[in-house]
This record gives sequence, C-alpha cells and structure tokens, in this order.
Amino acid sequence: MIAPPRAELLSLNTATVREQWNLRQMIEGCARHGIRGISPWRDKLGELGAAEAARLIRQHELAVTGLCRGGMFPAADAAGRRAAIDDNWRAIDDAATIGARCLVLVVGGIPAGSKDLAGARQMVIDGIAAVLDHARASRVPLAIEPLHPMYCADRACVNTLDQALDICDALDPAPPGASPSGAIGVAVDAYHVWWDPNLPRALERARPERLLAYHICDWLVPTTDLLLDRGMMGDGVIDLPALRARLEGSGYRGFHEVEILSTRWWQRDPDEVLRIVRERHLRCS
Amino acid sequence: MIAPPRAELLSLNTATVREQWNLRQMIEGCARHGIRGISPWRDKLGELGAAEAARLIRQHELAVTGLCRGGMFPAADAAGRRAAIDDNWRAIDDAATIGARCLVLVVGGIPAGSKDLAGARQMVIDGIAAVLDHARASRVPLAIEPLHPMYCADRACVNTLDQALDICDALDPAPPGASPSGAIGVAVDAYHVWWDPNLPRALERARPERLLAYHICDWLVPTTDLLLDRGMMGDGVIDLPALRARLEGSGYRGFHEVEILSTRWWQRDPDEVLRIVRERHLRCS
Repeated sequence: MIAPPRAELLSLNTATVREQWNLRQMIEGCARHGIRGISPWRDKLGELGAAEAARLIRQHELAVTGLCRGGMFPAADAAGRRAAIDDNWRAIDDAATIGARCLVLVVGGIPAGSKDLAGARQMVIDGIAAVLDHARASRVPLAIEPLHPMYCADRACVNTLDQALDICDALDPAPPGASPSGAIGVAVDAYHVWWDPNLPRALERARPERLLAYHICDWLVPTTDLLLDRGMMGDGVIDLPALRARLEGSGYRGFHEVEILSTRWWQRDPDEVLRIVRERHLRCS
Repeated sequence: MIAPPRAELLSLNTATVREQWNLRQMIEGCARHGIRGISPWRDKLGELGAAEAARLIRQHELAVTGLCRGGMFPAADAAGRRAAIDDNWRAIDDAATIGARCLVLVVGGIPAGSKDLAGARQMVIDGIAAVLDHARASRVPLAIEPLHPMYCADRACVNTLDQALDICDALDPAPPGASPSGAIGVAVDAYHVWWDPNLPRALERARPERLLAYHICDWLVPTTDLLLDRGMMGDGVIDLPALRARLEGSGYRGFHEVEILSTRWWQRDPDEVLRIVRERHLRCS
C-alpha cells in the first residue's frame, strides 16, 4: 500500500473552478478550505491585476505552485513568433510578481495551414531559448508541460515526458557531475502522461531539479470530449497513488495541483467542488 | 518532392463505407472503382460468410490486405481471457479462409474496474503468445496495431510503434544475423502514430518483415469526437507523403489501406467516397 499524500501538499489549479469564481474568490476559497497552494491562469490574473493578486496571496499565505500559462510559440510567420515571445516575457514578469514557483508552458501546436510538425517542434525550442535568460534572471523556472498526444495539432506538440526532458537537456545541460540549474524543467500532468509505456524510464531519468510541478485529475471511460471531460481523482482509470510514488521516487517533493477541465464540475457549487477535491486528494491520489 | 504513390497500391478498409454497404457491395465497389485491395471487418464478414467472401474476392482478383480485427485480450477474469483467445483463434481461421495478408490486432484496453495498466499490457503479451503458434501454422501474420494514446483505456493499451515492436521482438525474436520470421509484426496507422516524436527512430528500427500493413486517413483540426471524426487524406495536418516515404525507406512495399471512421463520410454516397479516396490517395498521401 502506498501511504496517502500529505494534505498540506494539495494545490488548486484555478481552471477547476474557472466558470464559477474570479481569482479573488479562488484565493479566499483556498484559504477557507485549508488548501495551501494555488496556481492561477493568466486571464483571471489579468482581471484582478498581478499586484493585487500577489497581495491577497501573501495575506492568505498561499504557495503559488505555478502560473498557467506561457508557451504557444509556433506561428506561421516571424511576426507571430515574435509576438509569442513578447507574450511569454510578460508572463514571466507576472509569474515573478506573484512569486510563482514556475511558469507552465503549453508550447503550442502546428501553425494553421501547416503540416510541418518537425518545424513546429523546432519553433518551440527556439521560442523557449529566446525567453530562458529572462526567466532565469527573473527567478521564474520554466516548466514545459508535455500534453496528451491528442492535443499535438492544436495545443502542444511536446507530447511525452522524454521529449520535454530532451528539450531541457538541450537548452540547459547539467554540467558534468552536477545537477541541472533548475531554470527549466517539466510539469508532469497525470492526465497527459499516464498512458506512456516509457513513463517509468522517463521519470527515472528526470532529476529532481527538472520536476517543477505535478498536476492531477483522472481519465474517464468513456471520455466524451477531447478537452473538457476530465475527471475527479478516483473517477477514472489512472493509478494516481502509483504515479505519485514514482514521482517521489525521482525526488519530487512539491505540491499536487488539481486541475480539472470539466463542463460537469463547472456546473457544481465551487465550495462543494473544493470539499471533494480535498477528500479525493487524500483518498485517491 | 515525394513522388505520388502507385495507384495499384490503394486498398479499402471497409470501415470507410461500413454504414452504407454490405461486404458484397464493398467487394464489387472496389472492383468497379479499380481499387485492388480490400480489408474487411469481421462483422461484415460474418454476415456474408467467409467462404462466400473468399469466392467473391477471388472472382474480382482483390488482394486482402488485412482482416480487422483480432485482439481485445485483457479481461477481468481467466474465463474472459480464455474467451478472447478462442475468438482470436476463430479470427485467424477466417483470415486464412479469405487469404488475408495479416490479422490486425487491436489489443484491448484496461479491464472494467481496473486501474492496472501494466497488468493489462501483460495480458496482451500473454494473449498474443497464446495464439501465435496457430497463426504461424495458418500462415496468417499477426499485425499489432498501436492505437493513439487516447484509446489506451478502452481500446488498445499498445500505443506506440516502439512498444508494438518490443512485443514482436519478445515473442518472435529474429535469430542472430537473420531476419524476423514475419509471423508477427505491426500495422502502422498514420492517424495513431503521426504525433510520436520517436516515430522516425521506431521506423528505422522496424525491419521490413515487421511492417505488415499501412493505414491512412487524416487528423482533423478541430477533432470533435475521439472515435468517429477521422479525416479524408489531405483534409488534416498529417504529412502523409513524408510518412509513406519513411515507411518505404524502412522497406515497406505493401498496400496503402484507407480507413476512415467518420460519421460525416458515412453520410455520403459510397461511390462518391471511393472516387474521392482514389483521387486523394494519389494527390495527398
């Protein structure tokens, strides 16, 4: 048996209640429910303002386990790629303002009209390379999030943990005999990686400095929508305790961030959602 | 520029017109449209009868590029696994009757109520091992089809070409310095593998004896259904000519089997569908 997780490592990715609450309500909701971590999305952060968000988060003593999201680097022309880099620059600044432990990168898919997957993947590497120095100077680690292969075309063409780690190693190689710098790493989301037959080896390969975030939800059977039918922990087929044990075995000691994009859960009372999140975190993850 | 494919290598996977035609109509439709290969599904084969299907296929001089499908090995109990093996035994017999070049294996997902993905994968290996001798004796090669990771839970827990090749190598190792026997290999479906960052290396690794079938369609953006929204070649983002060139580079010389599971195309006149399939095969694959 795998021991239950520590309750104080629960974090709320605010997408989980994005249709019900604004960021102020989310922060206060986390505090009210004893959830010690939060990971906001930029649209909500923009509404409230990063400075006011930072003040509220400090007031409630929450850890900011990430900012969602930077990325979306590929574009059909150089102007589009430049705009993406500028936007990531601003995201890094916002992440620094709120004290986020990382900026999550959803790297982007294939530009409209293109079939050049290898080219898109190169644009991702070039884009990250173009913002890495600013991230390092701002002390905001960049967390590449490999997304499930069903999002390869339109959201993220980085689709396995190994592929994300390859990019980390290329852009920020560890000196011989030393640890990686921590300036760039990965966000491991159970929903995106659970199926990967190479996942155990990839996690063994990942040094602790590369493991910047861990996201959880569940894969439902059947899944009725490619984006908005993610499940509450325990309602699907992912062996979340076993996956957490693997991450801990690779040295991960951070938060467990619950991110559930679901039209079903968005219809529920958000306080009820947070109660269930807390309970399922302990019992099913 | 990659040269267009040879028209005579086009094959019709009958799922493409499954809602419009029975197998007799499919066979006659292929003959009428100058399509030289066909790959039936077992439900349609059962309706017509394997012996009558074999007679009609011989009469029209079609190549049978595969029989869809065996597999579905994992089950919650031993009786279920035994029933799956018996069913695969019968599928091998049917494939032999109609002279199929392979039996396509959609290996199955995780048994209902289980979260044991590794266990399901072992059941797949055990199931294939249990029928391999019968397949070999029947001269019906088994083609493991890695399915897109979005089907991992409920259809196939073999999700990458590398994983499928690992199973082939485990169950049918090539003698030192010699070629694999050809008794077991893979069906490469563009829809299922196009996203894989490791695909080029996996195809380089695949010996020609392992490459038993090649299926084509396209990945649409957006994709609105996990199963029934596959696209006609040219309507999506897959660089099909480049993928074909890679397969040919690995020694594949077989048919290009068009398999489009699509509620949209199932509403069209099947003769029109076959005309478009022929045209898109030449122009977009």
